[in-house]
Amino acid sequence: MRIVLDAMGTDARPAPDVEGAVLAAREYGETIILIGNEQAIQVELNKFDTSNLKIEVHHAEEQILMNEKPSLVMKSKPLSSIHLGMKLVKEGQGDAFVTMGNTGAAHAIATLSTLRRIPAVKRPALTAIYPIWGQETILLDVGANADSKIEWMEQFAVMGSIYAEKALARENPRVATLSNGEEEGKGNQLVREVQSRLRESNLNYIGHIEPKEMLRGTADVVVMDGYVGNIFIKSVEAAFSYLIDMLRQEIRNDIVSTMGGALARPAFRRTRDRMDPRGVGGAPLLGVNGVVIIGHGSSDAFAVKSAIKQAIRAVEGNVVAEIKQGLEKIVTETNA
Amino acid sequence: MRIVLDAMGTDARPAPDVEGAVLAAREYGETIILIGNEQAIQVELNKFDTSNLKIEVHHAEEQILMNEKPSLVMKSKPLSSIHLGMKLVKEGQGDAFVTMGNTGAAHAIATLSTLRRIPAVKRPALTAIYPIWGQETILLDVGANADSKIEWMEQFAVMGSIYAEKALARENPRVATLSNGEEEGKGNQLVREVQSRLRESNLNYIGHIEPKEMLRGTADVVVMDGYVGNIFIKSVEAAFSYLIDMLRQEIRNDIVSTMGGALARPAFRRTRDRMDPRGVGGAPLLGVNGVVIIGHGSSDAFAVKSAIKQAIRAVEGNVVAEIKQGLEKIVTETNA
Repeated sequence: MRIVLDAMGTDARPAPDVEGAVLAAREYGETIILIGNEQAIQVELNKFDTSNLKIEVHHAEEQILMNEKPSLVMKSKPLSSIHLGMKLVKEGQGDAFVTMGNTGAAHAIATLSTLRRIPAVKRPALTAIYPIWGQETILLDVGANADSKIEWMEQFAVMGSIYAEKALARENPRVATLSNGEEEGKGNQLVREVQSRLRESNLNYIGHIEPKEMLRGTADVVVMDGYVGNIFIKSVEAAFSYLIDMLRQEIRNDIVSTMGGALARPAFRRTRDRMDPRGVGGAPLLGVNGVVIIGHGSSDAFAVKSAIKQAIRAVEGNVVAEIKQGLEKIVTETNA
Repeated sequence: MRIVLDAMGTDARPAPDVEGAVLAAREYGETIILIGNEQAIQVELNKFDTSNLKIEVHHAEEQILMNEKPSLVMKSKPLSSIHLGMKLVKEGQGDAFVTMGNTGAAHAIATLSTLRRIPAVKRPALTAIYPIWGQETILLDVGANADSKIEWMEQFAVMGSIYAEKALARENPRVATLSNGEEEGKGNQLVREVQSRLRESNLNYIGHIEPKEMLRGTADVVVMDGYVGNIFIKSVEAAFSYLIDMLRQEIRNDIVSTMGGALARPAFRRTRDRMDPRGVGGAPLLGVNGVVIIGHGSSDAFAVKSAIKQAIRAVEGNVVAEIKQGLEKIVTETNA
């Protein structure tokens, strides 16, 4: 297997990216193709013993920064590591593309200029994978499509279910819709209509769930409109930071608590590790014609390695072909 | 001032409700009218020395349970404590109505059968008041109106701004729209259109904010569609519980952390107190023709007292008249 890694993805590029590639090549034994500024990559690679590892370097003249506008760089930087990396996958020289870089740019470049959509797919979806009580739950769409349409969301459900089954090894994945209540009649018009469609699908659809249920791990796949999904993941993240900041402040506020906080540090660390999205590393952009895994810009080498692992699982699960087939089946059934 | 309190609101009715009324009557010196099952209320009242307090009891034959369907009980239980309590306010025998009971029922009964809307109001909004870093932020709509329209949300902004100024004593309140990003073009179609409207209003509109910014206290009023708002408040709540549950589990997981956790308990308690919605007690249903404050069913006496305080602030701030005037001004300006 050949995984193409954007070496210019993280905020501290290319050090964590290159180190992550080394760790992954060592642990998984697959070929990692680093794409980006060749010289900068070499400087980092020289810090490691890579003699027995399958690591290749491809030069990319340009790089896309985190705050650059996707619609602009998609056209203005055709030689970026994201463009060239995805092209390698398109041309069959790589099996998957992994980046910790600009999510919007990766989405735009994949969808509109390189890999493009799987023919039957109406809109690719950005996903997030939450490690909930040690079990992975995939959420989609978390930001690619504000004002999602019913048909798009129906496809998100199918794609998410296939990914959960094939890449996350979840048997007969439980698919739910995020809503503000489980009862009949809850939700907005969009999500209610998606519900009736999914009830008639052959997915293991379990109905609406609230955020509380989701964080209890009651579903394997949670479908939502991209606007709501993006606000959802940002709300959960913001709530975590808020609570932690406040706890930290209060722990420092009296000497006994400060001592207690110091003693309980291992517990805090374990909690952080269990919730850590770095264990998952990245999540797939589903619906494009190739495996694309996108992680956080703040990723360290460990997170980069995990994202590469995620890509390996997606390739092994043959998710792109499965999605093609799964969606065609729906189209056939609908037309039957 | 005369505050009507639903004595049958909390899950443990009527004990916390009655005790909250006693605490409030003692602390604020205002008249509290307890409405509900007279006998049950008296049993609780007898536990306190109420000799110098202005507490009255009004009997209500029926009570509405937490899980009852608003649209049903609105018609089937015309003698409920919510119906009769709101009628007292409508008839001028009370200045505000406070309940810890069924939110949907309170909304339906206020809007459709007793107080009704302020004439210019298109849709009343449920609000939440967050104590963010010690400063109150009002969010609306948090659940009354899934599929909100632009004009409704524009009114939410006006009503929220008036409440923040008049009841929460915030000067020139900063009004924001909740979105998935601050940049131009972020958001869904609805929130983008609301943004252009608010930019042209005479409110102190500061633009879109993300959940992160909201929890930093960058706005006093945050406007959102009722579906998104309801998911937002539920997500934040779910994220807090999830993190706390996990921390608790990890703290118990080794003996040193357990000791540390015990020592740091005061810090945990202070954190909980600072985030505690009980300090706010309840939040207004804005847009109905009278002050209505709704709190949580799980409220204790302290939270009930705080909700009564919230009602007193709303009455003192003359918010209903201010909203009438504020919305008429918009209508006049729009037609000018």
